[in-house]
Amino acid sequence: MQRLGVFRDPASVAVVGASDNRSKWGYWLAAGALTGAHRRRVDLVNRRGGTVCGQPSAPSLSALDDVPELVALCVPPAHVSDVVDEGLSAGVKGFLGITAAVPAEAELAQRIRAAGARLVGANSLGIVDTATQLCLAWGSFTPGPLAIVSQSGQVGSELALLGVRHGLGISRFVSLGNASDVTATELLADLVDHESTRVVAVYLENFANGAALLDVLRKLGKPTLLLTVGGSAASTRLARSHTGSLTSSLDVVDAACRAAGVARVGTPAEVIDVARALLATRPPRGGRVAIIGDSGGQCGIAADVAHAHQLRVPPVDIAVTLPDGAAQHNPVDLAGAGEQDIANYARVTEAVLRSDHVDAAVLTGYFGRYGLDIPAIGDQEVAVAQRIGEIAATAGKPVLVHSMGPDSATAHALWAAGVPTYDRIEATLSALKGLTAFGRPAELPLPDQTRPIGVLPDGYWETRQVLVDVAFPRAFVARRREDLGNAARLTAPYVLKAAWLEHKSEAGGVRTGLSTPEALARAFDEMAARLGPGEYVVEEQDTRPNTVEILVGGKRDPDFGPLITVGAGGTETEVQHDTATELAPVSPGTARKMLDRLRCARLLHGWRGRPPVDIDGLAELVHRVSVLVAGSPLVGELELNPVRVGPDGPLAVDALIIPTTRLEAHRA
Amino acid sequence: MQRLGVFRDPASVAVVGASDNRSKWGYWLAAGALTGAHRRRVDLVNRRGGTVCGQPSAPSLSALDDVPELVALCVPPAHVSDVVDEGLSAGVKGFLGITAAVPAEAELAQRIRAAGARLVGANSLGIVDTATQLCLAWGSFTPGPLAIVSQSGQVGSELALLGVRHGLGISRFVSLGNASDVTATELLADLVDHESTRVVAVYLENFANGAALLDVLRKLGKPTLLLTVGGSAASTRLARSHTGSLTSSLDVVDAACRAAGVARVGTPAEVIDVARALLATRPPRGGRVAIIGDSGGQCGIAADVAHAHQLRVPPVDIAVTLPDGAAQHNPVDLAGAGEQDIANYARVTEAVLRSDHVDAAVLTGYFGRYGLDIPAIGDQEVAVAQRIGEIAATAGKPVLVHSMGPDSATAHALWAAGVPTYDRIEATLSALKGLTAFGRPAELPLPDQTRPIGVLPDGYWETRQVLVDVAFPRAFVARRREDLGNAARLTAPYVLKAAWLEHKSEAGGVRTGLSTPEALARAFDEMAARLGPGEYVVEEQDTRPNTVEILVGGKRDPDFGPLITVGAGGTETEVQHDTATELAPVSPGTARKMLDRLRCARLLHGWRGRPPVDIDGLAELVHRVSVLVAGSPLVGELELNPVRVGPDGPLAVDALIIPTTRLEAHRA
Repeated sequence: MQRLGVFRDPASVAVVGASDNRSKWGYWLAAGALTGAHRRRVDLVNRRGGTVCGQPSAPSLSALDDVPELVALCVPPAHVSDVVDEGLSAGVKGFLGITAAVPAEAELAQRIRAAGARLVGANSLGIVDTATQLCLAWGSFTPGPLAIVSQSGQVGSELALLGVRHGLGISRFVSLGNASDVTATELLADLVDHESTRVVAVYLENFANGAALLDVLRKLGKPTLLLTVGGSAASTRLARSHTGSLTSSLDVVDAACRAAGVARVGTPAEVIDVARALLATRPPRGGRVAIIGDSGGQCGIAADVAHAHQLRVPPVDIAVTLPDGAAQHNPVDLAGAGEQDIANYARVTEAVLRSDHVDAAVLTGYFGRYGLDIPAIGDQEVAVAQRIGEIAATAGKPVLVHSMGPDSATAHALWAAGVPTYDRIEATLSALKGLTAFGRPAELPLPDQTRPIGVLPDGYWETRQVLVDVAFPRAFVARRREDLGNAARLTAPYVLKAAWLEHKSEAGGVRTGLSTPEALARAFDEMAARLGPGEYVVEEQDTRPNTVEILVGGKRDPDFGPLITVGAGGTETEVQHDTATELAPVSPGTARKMLDRLRCARLLHGWRGRPPVDIDGLAELVHRVSVLVAGSPLVGELELNPVRVGPDGPLAVDALIIPTTRLEAHRA
Repeated sequence: MQRLGVFRDPASVAVVGASDNRSKWGYWLAAGALTGAHRRRVDLVNRRGGTVCGQPSAPSLSALDDVPELVALCVPPAHVSDVVDEGLSAGVKGFLGITAAVPAEAELAQRIRAAGARLVGANSLGIVDTATQLCLAWGSFTPGPLAIVSQSGQVGSELALLGVRHGLGISRFVSLGNASDVTATELLADLVDHESTRVVAVYLENFANGAALLDVLRKLGKPTLLLTVGGSAASTRLARSHTGSLTSSLDVVDAACRAAGVARVGTPAEVIDVARALLATRPPRGGRVAIIGDSGGQCGIAADVAHAHQLRVPPVDIAVTLPDGAAQHNPVDLAGAGEQDIANYARVTEAVLRSDHVDAAVLTGYFGRYGLDIPAIGDQEVAVAQRIGEIAATAGKPVLVHSMGPDSATAHALWAAGVPTYDRIEATLSALKGLTAFGRPAELPLPDQTRPIGVLPDGYWETRQVLVDVAFPRAFVARRREDLGNAARLTAPYVLKAAWLEHKSEAGGVRTGLSTPEALARAFDEMAARLGPGEYVVEEQDTRPNTVEILVGGKRDPDFGPLITVGAGGTETEVQHDTATELAPVSPGTARKMLDRLRCARLLHGWRGRPPVDIDGLAELVHRVSVLVAGSPLVGELELNPVRVGPDGPLAVDALIIPTTRLEAHRA
């Protein structure tokens, strides 16, 4: 991959289409470029010449004394091609395409690459690097630790503005525009050694070549927040109208984020809230939070908001004496003890963080405001704030604060002590939720013990044979009536399946509950008369009590590659959307966590007095299917639905493999 | 109900326990009371006498020249009772109990009531009425249109602080404390004629006597926002530890809010966001929103956030020409047309609001910021803002704006024109979601055509007889083997039920699929031998194809009274929590909307090529059950689970009625 240094710290810059008119991009790019004029040559080009931004301009690139390394293109669409050719022949190394609706843009990008140069854009809203005083964008940028790489320039601008409003400056800003040449993946890779960047925010709505993106994100070494869309039919419709292609579903993007150790967030404000937490404190090892406040109401509201963010607020016993009426068991409602002695906030924080059942603490309410109302205790409050920071550091667990005095001296002391403070409880808990994405221990690579599927099976019987790691009911093939004698080896009731059909049930190709060999024979005659000769399969019907139906499915995503999904089995999967998806392969441990994420998990753990099913055996099956799908590129989709799981293990009672080639043909 | 004027505009106030120490409540109450000294007598009482807050204090209530109408109690807990008795004998009309942990508080409240006086508190954080300059609380309060009635003083304070930070002042603030005498319901009723109040925010975590509360909320005539807890196990645990009693589930509270035309919100910040919208604009008639922006990214993010708030972003065709690359179908991505001509924001807003498929519009992104970056177009942007306000008013539909310039002149012009502006897209859409609660047309009272259940049925057969409006499969009672001859009148297969058992299936008291009279007879013999003599019921088994199982249940909530619930039938109801609940009775129209809220609604509308089921018939059944439950106080719970609904109508195949007395015994 070619280095992108020319877009980070070019030796010289020219803005073509520079203007004095503040409503034109040529003005903002010229004015921005000139802010770096003390460290690099800045040339302004305007075909009418004259003075622009108080500096003489040249009428064309060719009229410049020296060749600029980087050229920003702000000319009308029809002129872009000529300016690029002029630049390429002079030896320009990089182009920043601001102009939108450039004719034949793909071909232009191709020409630039062929000449050994690179293009960011076109239709970019600009590039900024505050460490090198490179500012080629609308607006001004306060230096700081946040890098922004955005497929949408406006979303990038909103991130930068919100960041600065919350005290978080920018290290780097790149608006990808149409990404006709330089991609998000390349720009992210370029941040690995970007010293001023400590946190990365990326907005993407398109994940073509997701595998390369994942690889870069895994190696980036800086916490990354992904903002994307696709959580609704409307945003998916819009994104497809942009990119003209299918986009991966959010379930898949979330699985990819988990695999890459990236946090997905839903709004620009969430990006800033989480980024602030990342800069102040460390991620928790899990999602179990203790809530502490001097008001039961604020504690209760915080608990509900935590729940809405999929954080857990487990009961905790703490060894601190609190007044009557206080709740000790998380949420910890100090019930006046905070007002009586502000040091109780620190005592209780220390006590809850000592618990093995707590990964993080959140203070909610008045702490941070006492000093504003009672100046006499302001110093004491600041000291308690510092003490809370020490407690968090010692425990190795983050503390976040929602404060009614978010701009107070105490709030600043909290921040300095590594305790980020927010003015809304929802921002506090969404920041904590975002942090949890970075505290998960990385899963060890799985041993590659796959016997990949080299030849795709044809029909249900062959599929059974190919899936050697999957338990199926005992069965035999019956092509003729005479073969039915083998039923003596099985236990009734029997199931008869027209095994070559893909949608057997819909075609009347399944009969269940055949309780005698005679009933089986009658069913065979009837079905054979209707569907003709073929590979019929006779199976033992699974009549074990206390089973639960689960779907286990593998799939090849066009962007992110192999996936594994578990879900409530049967038609419910689609209607209730009770599923969990990860990139494949997964370990048995991850498979178990996936099962626990299902709403129907309660059925697995012993529902209404029934015995629990063999979850370990099911998790092992999910793991094996995930390894198989990951290792078998020919398999586009593999679905076991349902797998019936009982206390003595899982049994797949249907299986289907769809070739990758068929899915690709369908997409084309 | 006694008027609470003494807590609104007392002729005179005394603060007992007044202090010069800023860390004591006695200081804040005294200092606050004195801000109203120009319109009422304010006496300060401190048992050591001397000067307090620059004014001479009296050593006791009895030492005052005149009897104060209202007394604020800030003395230590042990002294409260004596001060109250002193006040009562002098003729004090109202007490504000600030002191917490007052001994024998219930008995004290009883004494106050018996003397014809009233108590707010104890453990209150105070009372404020900015219209009458009554300020008996911690902190200072900016006058404005928001009334706050809060069971938690701190939540009340947070609301007041957040309100003022967002330009929203306070008309009234009451912290209920323990509500040992004056209740939230009374304080809300007292706001009916409170002229400075235009919006009401109430925090409650306990809904005892919910019916009276609902009645007041219905008649309040001012939009009300309910903040409450109970959305998580942790907050429910905490609230129960406060109140020592069961609290209604949030599903039920939400049903009550819908019935009362109240919006439930989850955080203090949401209260302020929605209140600002209520003050600026009108509620939409539904939840269908058009999203407009100059950036596809911001439009997509807004669409996802709208979806997360259960708002719909339907496709819309608009008759405005936009540049290439623009998305016209909602979200409307101007794709640069806003930058080219800022008036396009108004044109597109007008076009989308003209659609019958749109109830409201949200602008997201740069609008509101152009003038900050390009001063030359600042005036034009303000003019477009005013035009957007006119468009909203003309269409009778609200417009809300998420702006990257939330404090700009344009943002202020938007606000003045009735268009509230926010700095985060999530705040914008949660405000709109909150607004929708007030745009629903009130449901007409249902005609009271109930034949209430006067005598509770015993067993399944009697329950069938009592539920005259519910269709069941044909059936007969068989006490003896000879009765089975009646099976000739039914169509096989048969179902045999031991009808006197409440949990028939669990006790082995149900046999299905009895395909012949002989099989029925054998099953009868077996069951009778096992369960003994009793009222057996033989029923036709419902073998109609394409049926869906739905739960229909009525219930009597201890706080809010009769409820009606629909849900996915069978065990799924509990596991998938796919239910919808309303206060009973409901019209057939509301019943239909409840069914449409279920995730499993897709099954009803014709799933995978199956014919749709008789939804109107099902809705009619839900309506009738709701009327029956509402009109039959003896019925604690009525459950039809499942009701099997096919294209030709619903058929209940099990029914259970639990008497109110049994539920009450269970709760006690």
